[in-house]
Formats: sequence, structure tokens, C-alpha cells
Amino acid sequence: MKDELKRRVYEANMLLPKYGLITFTWGNVSEREGDVVAIKPSGVEYDALRPEDIVLVGMDGSILEDGLNPSSDLETHLELYRNFEGVAGITHTHSEWATSWAQAGMDIPAAGTTHADYIYGDVPCTRGLTPGEIRGAYELNTGKVIVETFAGLDPLAVPCVLVKNHGPFTWGASAAESVRNAVVLEQIAKMAFVGRTLQGGGPERMPQSLLDKHYLRKHGKNAYYGQKK
Amino acid sequence: MKDELKRRVYEANMLLPKYGLITFTWGNVSEREGDVVAIKPSGVEYDALRPEDIVLVGMDGSILEDGLNPSSDLETHLELYRNFEGVAGITHTHSEWATSWAQAGMDIPAAGTTHADYIYGDVPCTRGLTPGEIRGAYELNTGKVIVETFAGLDPLAVPCVLVKNHGPFTWGASAAESVRNAVVLEQIAKMAFVGRTLQGGGPERMPQSLLDKHYLRKHGKNAYYGQKK
Amino acid sequence: MKDELKRRVYEANMLLPKYGLITFTWGNVSEREGDVVAIKPSGVEYDALRPEDIVLVGMDGSILEDGLNPSSDLETHLELYRNFEGVAGITHTHSEWATSWAQAGMDIPAAGTTHADYIYGDVPCTRGLTPGEIRGAYELNTGKVIVETFAGLDPLAVPCVLVKNHGPFTWGASAAESVRNAVVLEQIAKMAFVGRTLQGGGPERMPQSLLDKHYLRKHGKNAYYGQKK
Amino acid sequence: MKDELKRRVYEANMLLPKYGLITFTWGNVSEREGDVVAIKPSGVEYDALRPEDIVLVGMDGSILEDGLNPSSDLETHLELYRNFEGVAGITHTHSEWATSWAQAGMDIPAAGTTHADYIYGDVPCTRGLTPGEIRGAYELNTGKVIVETFAGLDPLAVPCVLVKNHGPFTWGASAAESVRNAVVLEQIAKMAFVGRTLQGGGPERMPQSLLDKHYLRKHGKNAYYGQKK
Repeated sequence: MKDELKRRVYEANMLLPKYGLITFTWGNVSEREGDVVAIKPSGVEYDALRPEDIVLVGMDGSILEDGLNPSSDLETHLELYRNFEGVAGITHTHSEWATSWAQAGMDIPAAGTTHADYIYGDVPCTRGLTPGEIRGAYELNTGKVIVETFAGLDPLAVPCVLVKNHGPFTWGASAAESVRNAVVLEQIAKMAFVGRTLQGGGPERMPQSLLDKHYLRKHGKNAYYGQKK
Repeated sequence: MKDELKRRVYEANMLLPKYGLITFTWGNVSEREGDVVAIKPSGVEYDALRPEDIVLVGMDGSILEDGLNPSSDLETHLELYRNFEGVAGITHTHSEWATSWAQAGMDIPAAGTTHADYIYGDVPCTRGLTPGEIRGAYELNTGKVIVETFAGLDPLAVPCVLVKNHGPFTWGASAAESVRNAVVLEQIAKMAFVGRTLQGGGPERMPQSLLDKHYLRKHGKNAYYGQKK
Repeated sequence: MKDELKRRVYEANMLLPKYGLITFTWGNVSEREGDVVAIKPSGVEYDALRPEDIVLVGMDGSILEDGLNPSSDLETHLELYRNFEGVAGITHTHSEWATSWAQAGMDIPAAGTTHADYIYGDVPCTRGLTPGEIRGAYELNTGKVIVETFAGLDPLAVPCVLVKNHGPFTWGASAAESVRNAVVLEQIAKMAFVGRTLQGGGPERMPQSLLDKHYLRKHGKNAYYGQKK
Repeated sequence: MKDELKRRVYEANMLLPKYGLITFTWGNVSEREGDVVAIKPSGVEYDALRPEDIVLVGMDGSILEDGLNPSSDLETHLELYRNFEGVAGITHTHSEWATSWAQAGMDIPAAGTTHADYIYGDVPCTRGLTPGEIRGAYELNTGKVIVETFAGLDPLAVPCVLVKNHGPFTWGASAAESVRNAVVLEQIAKMAFVGRTLQGGGPERMPQSLLDKHYLRKHGKNAYYGQKK
């Protein structure tokens, strides 16, 4: 069962180069199963990554097997798993369009149905961490500021965030779904940039009724997109 | 004959990933033959799509064979076939440059001969749907707002539209031709963005005489582009 | 010898898809040898093009062999060969960055040494053709307006032009060299766009002394770039 | 040993096309070993480059073996090796995003952690060379103006520079590391462009504490990124 978990996390990590979301080792994917989290090892090139390299840790960050060090972003992942019920997969990348919005410190407005098909509202950007938060338990505090940003938001309906001056985190019901949301986020980040530039610094949000329609035809209880399950 | 229709529609759909026009399943192509429309099934990955998966429906949307659900955009396609004489193929994508213009709610101006070789005038963007139109028969109403936008326009001379806050639809005399027009639209959407940004928010339209010349040397009755047919 | 000429022109045409400069059939390359010009046939897909399809014409446009129609841009090529001494190869594309500048009707300023290594000064954009020039011998008049633009300019030192609302033509001592210059032009067009946007609508030109240095270290009589010939 | 040096420099040069950093022969990589510098030959296409073509020179530019001419940028490389202690590899490219910033004559601000993971502060752009410096020992003077720009800066902490109206140079402890830094620079140049455009001409710098944190968790004496060495 642990081998299956490691294989899923390995395969989800390998989707990052496939979709052009990473340079070098700038990204990591994890999945939670019960009280175990499987995550990419730190600083290992994707070309060299093997399923058995995936690191297993407990919910408190304890290493469960001898082996490689986990991603240095582990504590951010754990904080999200502990606080976002129903989230079982997390992806972090420095993908170029989403990261550019994060560096600008700006929310990505819901500008069209591509966005609405997956994300129910704007993609929020966190506040910057304080110098104290940065000098302290930095990766944990990154998780905390994401959780703070989601006060009043449903993380399953808005499965992504931009960390200011850093980059995106996305999540979902599995490692694979969190990668899918990273692909979506990158695409809408590019299109929102183009639209904003066209409009000379808008952009207009889409009407709420259209956001409702597209999100709910895919995700609501009367969803009718796709094939019967 | 139905097998041939399905194969043509399958092959036209497979051009979308070839030309980089889609991510995941965000697009669909159909073709009409008499009173039958063949269309991509809903939510099926392009990697997994097979010719026999293509769905056949009647002009009223009735499913003609047991099998997969048709694209959720079916009713938009049907409304266009019912109203645009001579149109026998339709493509819908969320291609990034055309979708960005749609999200900005802006027409794409005819800025050069690449545009004029295929499209006789600006690419119109529809008005937004009203909340009532969105909550009602949404996909059918999307078709209706496109038809409304073409009052006074010849859909064979302007074979494409942007649906506000959504994305492009293109069409032609066959499924393959509608995909070709989707490629053209994406290219001119990118170049019009670059030109507009260079000009600081223009852009100038091309002169009417040049638009006439390029469109008519390819499409007029004295066309002289290409080889003798 | 004619077979060799056709093969060179075929190979130069096939560089256009290799370097990402064309979509569909939107481009053509020719080469002049004495009083014969070899040029791509009109409207033939690059995938299907064969060396024997290349069309041979005289300097007055007369077809020298039975076969396919020449590119519809033939008269533009011929006008340039007749007026630009030393030019023996011409490339026309609708490559996206250069075409965007052409659509904006703007010269590309010499902004850096990449430009200066190949082009000795700004890339000029022609005036628009008049309605009469467009309705008349349009392709010939396109050549004439390019020649007019080069009054006082050396076409061997500035081996490229933008035709307003249309796209780029580049040239050189051979078909292959004209394609190389098309690649250079596309690259500098993109970089000049980025620089202009960064500067909020500059851009500054590079100093004349730097333009001299880079152009002349590659092309002057004391050139020292590359290996001894 | 010289064969090993040549092979390393060959392999580092071949990373430039792999990472999309060069067009034609617009780039070169060198490595220093003691008093010998190995560098790409001038004007040789990457497709044709072989390990034995790499040129060995002394610290004064003297050619150590019969063979090809060294890169015309050799004197710039040598000036940097003579002045930047600890630097043993140098890369020069005309990569499009970094070169665009160089052409605009602008520093690239440290806008996020992707930048901070590798570069401890803004990427400086040199002043322009004077007409006298350009007409004189141009390549040597290019090196001198880089060294001048680094007065008060640690070249190991900021392993890159933009030469105004020209393009980037990057460096590191080996040829391979200097190429890695060229990839990083290109990526952050693109993201800084997007962020600046989003912000309408910012951009905000990241807080110093975040710059410290990310640079030092990878490069400081208590670095904890990656696997134990």
C-alpha cells in the first residue's frame, strides 16, 4: 500500500515536467493517505527521480523510513493537510505565469469560464510574511499564512493560492488532481495577464451568474459535464 | 457513410492537440451531414479518443446511437447549424490568445493581411449573456447570442466569433476547415495583442481596400491564390 | 544546374517550418541565378512540397516549365531582384513578432548587438499602399513600395523590411541567407517588443558606435568573427 | 586532463541549445582550470561542434594549441576570470528575455524567491560603453565595465550581469554552473517582465528578510535545501 502511494506521488511529480511547469527541481507534489504523507525528496532532479525515492513522513513531519530528505517545503504541505479537510494532494511549483502574479502580489480575477470550470472565485494572493515569520519557522509559517488567507473561503472550491513573492500552491483530492489544478492555474494566469494588458489595467470580473453556471455544471450536485460515473 | 463522418470528426478533433489549441478536454469539433451532426463526446481525453467514440445526434439534439454523452456544448453547435446556412463544421476551443480577447470582451480588429486572407472584417465579440440566459438553457442561449451578433454579417465571410467571458467558436464548410480557422484565429489574436501593446492601445485597422484585396484574391470569384482546382 | 537551384530553394523553404516561422503555407523563399528565379509554388503545404515542385520563372515572370503556379507573391520578389543589386535570395513570411510590428506600422529600432550583428540600422516599415496601388498590380506595387522605402538605404546592409499591414520580407546573397535573416528579424522583433514594453514606450536606440562595431566586426573588411575563410 | 576540460566545456556549451538559450551561434561557454581557459571556437554551429574543437588559451589570451579561433568574446571572459576570484566558468548568451532587459538598460529587480534561491540581490545592468571604449579593445572593455559594475558586489553571490545594449553574462564554480545560472536568469527575466507589466511599471522588490532566507537556505553555511553532501 505504501508502494502504491509512492508510485502515485512519483507519477504525479513526473507530470510537472510533462506539462512544462518546472525548471530544474523547482517544484514538488505530495499525497496524504490517513496519517502518512508521501512527498518528493529535496533537490533531486526529475530525470533521476525513482518511485522508491519518495519520502514518507508522519503528520508531524517525522520521517518514517531511512532514506532521502523530504522537500524543504514539507512543513507547508503538512500545515495545509492539517487544516484543509478533504485535501489529499498538494502541488507546489514556480510555474512562470502563476509565479509572476505571485511576485506582483496580485489576486488573479475570475475572468472567464476556463477559470470558472475549476475555481469558484478569484485566486487569492497571500499577504507577505513578516520578517519575524520569515526568520522563524519559515515553511510552517508559509502554510499558516495560506490558511489565514482562506478564512471564509472553501479550499475545495478554490483549490489554489499564490504566496506573495514566492509562487503557487494547488491542491485537490489526490496528488494527480493537485497537478491538474496547477496546469489550470498556469493557463488562467497567462490569459488573465493578456486580458489585463489588453484592457489597459482592468480586468473586469465575469458575472457571478456565469461563474456559478460553469463551476456548478462540472462540480455541483446536478453536474452534467462528462460521462456518467 | 456514418463511419466516414465519425472518422472525419475524429481526425479534426485530433488536430486540436497537434496545433496546440487545447489543454485537457477543453475543446470539441463537430460536422454536419444532412440532418445528422457528429460531435466529440463530453470529457473524454484526446489521448483516449477513438473514431467510434464520436457521438451522432439529430438536429434537435436527439441521440441516434447508444454510447457516450455528447459534448456539453452540443446545443451551441446545433443552434449555429440551424441558423448559418452553408456551415458544416464547427470548432470550439479555449485557445489562450483568442480566449484572452474573449475574456476582455473585445473584438479583434482586422489589422493585417494574415487576418484578411481568411476573415472579411473584425472578429466580433458577443455581448455577455444575461443572468436569466445563463440560468436557463445556457448552451442553447450561447448559440442564440452568437446568431444575434451576426445580424448583418455573413458567417461564411467571418467564420469565427468570441463569446464574452468564454472563448472562441469557429466554423467552415467542414470539420477540418473549422479547425483551420481556429488556428488562424489564435495566430491573429496573438499578433493583434502584440500590435495593440506596441501602439499603446490602438490598434489601427487596415485600409478597406487591402482587406478586400486579400480576402478576394483567396475567396472571390476571381481568386488566384493556390493551384488550379 | 536547374536541379541544383531547385534543390537549394526547396531546402531553404523547408527551413521555415524548422525555425517556426510559418503556419500552413504563409511564406515562400526564392533564389535568383542569372536570369532565372526559382520560387515556391502557390498554396502547397510544406509537408507535401518536393524539390521538383519548385517553379522556375524568367525575370519578367514568364513561366519556364510546365508545372505548378508560382507563389502569388512572385511579382514582389522579381521587383526586388530587379532593383537590389547583389540580392540573390528572398524570404517572405508572416512570422508572428515581425508581422505584429508590420501591422502596427512601426520601424524596429536597433536596440542591441543581436540586431547590429546582422542589420546596420533600424528595420524600416513601408508606407501603406494607396487604394489605387492595392486595386492595381498589387504584388508588383508591394515590391515598388519596398524599393521606394530603400531610397538612400543599402539593401545589403539592411537586409529586411516590414510591409505595413502585411509582414516581413528578408533577403541576402542566397535563399539560405535570406531565411537566416528571417530568423534574426523574428528574434529581434520579439526582443524589441519586450524592451519597449519594459520602458513604457521607448525604446532608446543603441549608440551609433556600438552599431558600427558589431556590424563591422562581422561584415566589414577587417571582420574578425568566426573562422578564417 | 586537458581532454577532460575540453569535454566539460563541450558539454556545457551543448546545454545552451537544450535549454533554448541560443539561436545559431549566439553564445559561448568557457571554464578555467589553473592558468588555462577552455572556450567555444568562434562561429561554429552547435550541431557541428565536437569536444576537440574547444580552444585552449592562456590567461593572457595566447592560443595553446593549433586549431580554431576562440570565441570573439574571449577577452571578456579572461577579464572576468582575472578579477572575480572563485569564478571558474562563464556563459554568454543572447537569450531573449535577459537580452531584452539588457537592451532596455534596466536592472532586474529581485522580485521573488526563484530569484533569491540563486541571486542575492538585483541583477545589475552595466553602463553603456563609451564610443572610445567601443572603438578600442572592445571585448576587453566589455569585461572591464562588468568588473566596474561589481564594485562593492560579490560576484559569487550575484553570479550574473546584463551588459547594456548587448546581453547577459553568467558565471559560477564551473562551466556547468554558469549555464545553470543562465537558465535561472532567463526565467527570472521573463517573470520580472510579466510582473512589471501587471503592476503597470513597478515592480516592488521583495523584502530583504525573504531574500536573505531563500538565498541562505540554499547557499549559507546552515543551508538545508537538498540532500546531505
